[in-house]
Amino acid sequence: MTTLHDTAVRGFASDNYSGVHPRILDAIARANGGHQISYGEDQYTEALGQVAHDVFGPEASIFPVFNGTGANVTALQSLLPRWGAVICATTAHINVDENGAPERVGGFKLLQVPTPDGKLTPELIDKEAWGYGDEHRAQPLAVSITQATELGTLYTPEEIKAITDHAHKLGMKVHLDGSRLSNAAASLGVELRALTTDAGVDIVSLGGTKNGILLGEGILTLRKELADDMKYLRKMNMQLGSKMRFISAQLIELYGTGLWRELASHANLMASKLAEAVEQIDGVELVYPTQANGVFAQLPTEASDELRQHFRFYDWDRAAGQVRWMCSFDTTEEDVAGFIAKLRELMAAHQGA
Amino acid sequence: MTTLHDTAVRGFASDNYSGVHPRILDAIARANGGHQISYGEDQYTEALGQVAHDVFGPEASIFPVFNGTGANVTALQSLLPRWGAVICATTAHINVDENGAPERVGGFKLLQVPTPDGKLTPELIDKEAWGYGDEHRAQPLAVSITQATELGTLYTPEEIKAITDHAHKLGMKVHLDGSRLSNAAASLGVELRALTTDAGVDIVSLGGTKNGILLGEGILTLRKELADDMKYLRKMNMQLGSKMRFISAQLIELYGTGLWRELASHANLMASKLAEAVEQIDGVELVYPTQANGVFAQLPTEASDELRQHFRFYDWDRAAGQVRWMCSFDTTEEDVAGFIAKLRELMAAHQGA
Amino acid sequence: MTTLHDTAVRGFASDNYSGVHPRILDAIARANGGHQISYGEDQYTEALGQVAHDVFGPEASIFPVFNGTGANVTALQSLLPRWGAVICATTAHINVDENGAPERVGGFKLLQVPTPDGKLTPELIDKEAWGYGDEHRAQPLAVSITQATELGTLYTPEEIKAITDHAHKLGMKVHLDGSRLSNAAASLGVELRALTTDAGVDIVSLGGTKNGILLGEGILTLRKELADDMKYLRKMNMQLGSKMRFISAQLIELYGTGLWRELASHANLMASKLAEAVEQIDGVELVYPTQANGVFAQLPTEASDELRQHFRFYDWDRAAGQVRWMCSFDTTEEDVAGFIAKLRELMAAHQGA
Amino acid sequence: MTTLHDTAVRGFASDNYSGVHPRILDAIARANGGHQISYGEDQYTEALGQVAHDVFGPEASIFPVFNGTGANVTALQSLLPRWGAVICATTAHINVDENGAPERVGGFKLLQVPTPDGKLTPELIDKEAWGYGDEHRAQPLAVSITQATELGTLYTPEEIKAITDHAHKLGMKVHLDGSRLSNAAASLGVELRALTTDAGVDIVSLGGTKNGILLGEGILTLRKELADDMKYLRKMNMQLGSKMRFISAQLIELYGTGLWRELASHANLMASKLAEAVEQIDGVELVYPTQANGVFAQLPTEASDELRQHFRFYDWDRAAGQVRWMCSFDTTEEDVAGFIAKLRELMAAHQGA
Repeated sequence: MTTLHDTAVRGFASDNYSGVHPRILDAIARANGGHQISYGEDQYTEALGQVAHDVFGPEASIFPVFNGTGANVTALQSLLPRWGAVICATTAHINVDENGAPERVGGFKLLQVPTPDGKLTPELIDKEAWGYGDEHRAQPLAVSITQATELGTLYTPEEIKAITDHAHKLGMKVHLDGSRLSNAAASLGVELRALTTDAGVDIVSLGGTKNGILLGEGILTLRKELADDMKYLRKMNMQLGSKMRFISAQLIELYGTGLWRELASHANLMASKLAEAVEQIDGVELVYPTQANGVFAQLPTEASDELRQHFRFYDWDRAAGQVRWMCSFDTTEEDVAGFIAKLRELMAAHQGA
Repeated sequence: MTTLHDTAVRGFASDNYSGVHPRILDAIARANGGHQISYGEDQYTEALGQVAHDVFGPEASIFPVFNGTGANVTALQSLLPRWGAVICATTAHINVDENGAPERVGGFKLLQVPTPDGKLTPELIDKEAWGYGDEHRAQPLAVSITQATELGTLYTPEEIKAITDHAHKLGMKVHLDGSRLSNAAASLGVELRALTTDAGVDIVSLGGTKNGILLGEGILTLRKELADDMKYLRKMNMQLGSKMRFISAQLIELYGTGLWRELASHANLMASKLAEAVEQIDGVELVYPTQANGVFAQLPTEASDELRQHFRFYDWDRAAGQVRWMCSFDTTEEDVAGFIAKLRELMAAHQGA
Repeated sequence: MTTLHDTAVRGFASDNYSGVHPRILDAIARANGGHQISYGEDQYTEALGQVAHDVFGPEASIFPVFNGTGANVTALQSLLPRWGAVICATTAHINVDENGAPERVGGFKLLQVPTPDGKLTPELIDKEAWGYGDEHRAQPLAVSITQATELGTLYTPEEIKAITDHAHKLGMKVHLDGSRLSNAAASLGVELRALTTDAGVDIVSLGGTKNGILLGEGILTLRKELADDMKYLRKMNMQLGSKMRFISAQLIELYGTGLWRELASHANLMASKLAEAVEQIDGVELVYPTQANGVFAQLPTEASDELRQHFRFYDWDRAAGQVRWMCSFDTTEEDVAGFIAKLRELMAAHQGA
Repeated sequence: MTTLHDTAVRGFASDNYSGVHPRILDAIARANGGHQISYGEDQYTEALGQVAHDVFGPEASIFPVFNGTGANVTALQSLLPRWGAVICATTAHINVDENGAPERVGGFKLLQVPTPDGKLTPELIDKEAWGYGDEHRAQPLAVSITQATELGTLYTPEEIKAITDHAHKLGMKVHLDGSRLSNAAASLGVELRALTTDAGVDIVSLGGTKNGILLGEGILTLRKELADDMKYLRKMNMQLGSKMRFISAQLIELYGTGLWRELASHANLMASKLAEAVEQIDGVELVYPTQANGVFAQLPTEASDELRQHFRFYDWDRAAGQVRWMCSFDTTEEDVAGFIAKLRELMAAHQGA
């Protein structure tokens, strides 16, 4: 097979439009050759267990799965009896971007809370944390937060701790959707465990694909008992890979070295440069603070539609004129400069009109 | 990350113990770089569509998914209303090796028929193809066959045609679990479409992982209308990969060139050499004809347990002393020779005792 | 068995606290004796079919089921492919009072819209009627409205027609949760079909239990094709009664005569008398207009808690001091007078304090 | 509503073709009037709790539900984690007569064992009780037996004890489908608890409808911890009745007095008279021993088809010429005599031919 696409083209649509970092491809190649037991009894998955301990503490385990939806649904299911429900922000990926997989496959209800910035708080959680013991109500027994959020905002470690303390007091467990956990830790300048283990989180969807790997996420359990039966849930939810060594090798390379922080920091930096420049352009406003690798801006729809002819990106709320510009591990300073130049040109024309 | 395992060790446990063929790794590398639209709108997935047409005919489409269970459950679900049931052999992978994912996630019942060799026939199908219109009975509306079967046996194109004709007459659709379809076609010396499109099959789980790729399978729809809504099912069943270009690139390399036949033929050849040699050893009997890349043998349990200390493989029916020896794309003649030598030695000792 | 309870005690908690109207008990007794084919091939269920035609038009069919949750989930499921979602008011019974049965058993997502009064409108529906063709979004393919709403408010026939026209234009079907449809029709002074068949509704959960019958609801299909496979869904959803004649006999007595209107009108009248008197009491405010048999009021929590020691009823929103007082087919003028006298006395004491 | 059917006609099709015993109708009437808390906090459901204790021992609780399918699925679900499976006889009602509700709604797999007479044994259970710890296999964690079986045969208390001991040793729990438990106890001349509590059973679907009540079954939990969360499962499985007092009143009348034994003994007696007479008729053979209220016979299909023009009944295995004749609480000696006379006449004609 020959290369079919223009490898020089990059846009601002999503951090999963990018490809694979060379060190990840190399890790895959090194895990190749010979036979290894399938379905996770290989030496790479074993080594990944050591990475889990080193990075997230002695109670941590990582169960490799295929994608974020699989990680989220399986992780949440493991926290809940059949009559359980999950409190989440209205904007949560599990609520708006997974075609009801949580409800259909996971079999749990999402109790949705509107938030100003994609972030839950103990007070916001209380809006749905009630009705315990009433069989008519899907029982709120887990909270799911996203870090970084779908709106590019961040929880501080203290904010997460306040949520887990509150949730635990009410008998709920806490899941963290960490498809961009690296971006959050890099931006906050903290270790990954500061946002998870040390903040009282019970289970994490540990991202990878959005930070330079080919394919794979991890269900990261942070309490020993949560790991006991995870293998059954992973299998029945169709998330058990046979040649698991190749997912594990990627996660080892990403999380067992500083690669996660290197790649995420770069993406964050590009986003902050982009945001900074955007703020200087008349007629364009930032909608949320740029705390990770996503920039949310408001501008006239005609301008954004013209811009899109040059760089691919998504509308966030078309009616409101809001767009999302994502930076990736492979976004370059030139990409940002070119984008800003074009945006400035279009807005000048537009303002002049 | 460094290589952690002994790349010189190979066994006979499973064709998914092997790694990735170099041409597949190369295809992944060629698909890398730049940005491509995620979730399947990339140029590789588009090119895979052309491969589908070329290999399976103008009505064919391939929807890349993560694994065989995901392909099976999603494909079968697409054939059935909510009250549907699937007729399959008792030994079918969907019945015995998927932890109930068909029932739990797919929501359909399996109507199981015992078979002598893992193969259904119109007569065997009739044992469960009844009760139409009776709401107390899960309605038998699909048949699932496996090619090559879980017992290493094969359907001829005519046998498949007889099944699809019969099923269609009864208002049922036909799914083919083709995790080893390449091995079947290679062994029978026919094109892939002879066993699928031309034999009247409606939908196929198109394997890959067991024939040298890293990760990925395809849901292959052979009727236009079956493709219409597949994207929704794939997404809700948590089988939608974001960087799909890398799964598509592998499938292009495998099925868009003769690679599938080359690798499968080799694995088949190794199995036939193994079977031939086994037949010459006193005290070891073949249980099923060796038609693809699996050899099923019966021997004293003590002998097989000793053998296993040298080469990894699985019991098939421990109580009956039956074992399974699988060959892979990377099995060498030396592997087979070494295995046979050890088996001969152990059996001689055992017979002598 | 002897009578264990005080048959003179009635409260304002719910219209399902009441018992069975004597004419309903009599209908059950008349359907007794001899043998009748089980599971719906009896003569009473056949006669119920005629009632369906007479009351709801020639395309209508009624499928007796056990309860409202069963009717709602099964009816909605029949409108949706596996990837479908339902737009409903946040306050809808299916969203807040069915422990996630729609999601868990029905397998569909609820897209919830906040409303001022429990009523959807075309504009409110549009808040969630988008994303068609995007596999990441649970596809909005049905609308569910409740008549009378959970807040005791009513849709006019014209309002329903506007919703069904809008929904149909967008490719959605419309379900009406009619657990209190009789109260709505009685209050509006229209025929049942004016609110259903003639208003373009596709399927109805036809109530019974809240209007004087012992047990039973009907899934009322208003398009011929919706009846085709309903029997399968009813059975698999565990809603198929064996001695169906006894549910059908009740529904015949209720809907095949004017009994439904007689009982609902009485309950409505009692509610309006209650509301009228409540409005005269200082410190008590009506929260929603009293259009059917429920009165929603706001008063100091201490007062309502004292009142509850004399008459059973539920808090609606305890934090806001809102309570719900329901009238039933057996509520008497004396019940209302006694309740009002006590409320007046308590509020006077409370206001004086 | 007037009586629409011929109350003098009775057949041998099913014990749910019959109507309601007068004492049951009377119990319903006595529970009527006034208001009672809905959803099970009424005084009749409380009294039913006392009946549970009296009849089944101090750990027993009864949760009224609507039908047998609802009881079976909910009871089994309560025994299983999400990855659990149930071992049952191939002929079990849950396997063949519930349109896959166990799989679709319950989400569990049925591991089916062929049996000679509808009865499991420890040895038969072992055919599927394996693979513990292997995530590829749906984990066998419950056994379901039916008493009396679907083939009209019975387990002795000792046989049940042997099964529960064996199952418990393997870490499985035991469910008993007791839709005809009364017939079994009456036939064996033992108390109900001898076949359940004292035999080590964990949970029971306690029948009612097939023994003279209008509608209703009970989920009978025999271990305290199984009752803890049953209310949630019952609700989410759409089996929670609002006017529960009327189901409870029926179950009190049936099980709180000797009525269950009286009615079941009569049905059994009619079946044994029928079987006895059948055995005397040339050309008709009993297929299974007649131990409860069902008679299974083999005779020429033409003869049974002619007989069916006079008395309604079902084919059991049409290909094999097997039919099922069920007796009910209201079957009379004259019914049996008339049936036998007609059968004798038809067989004589047939034999003569």
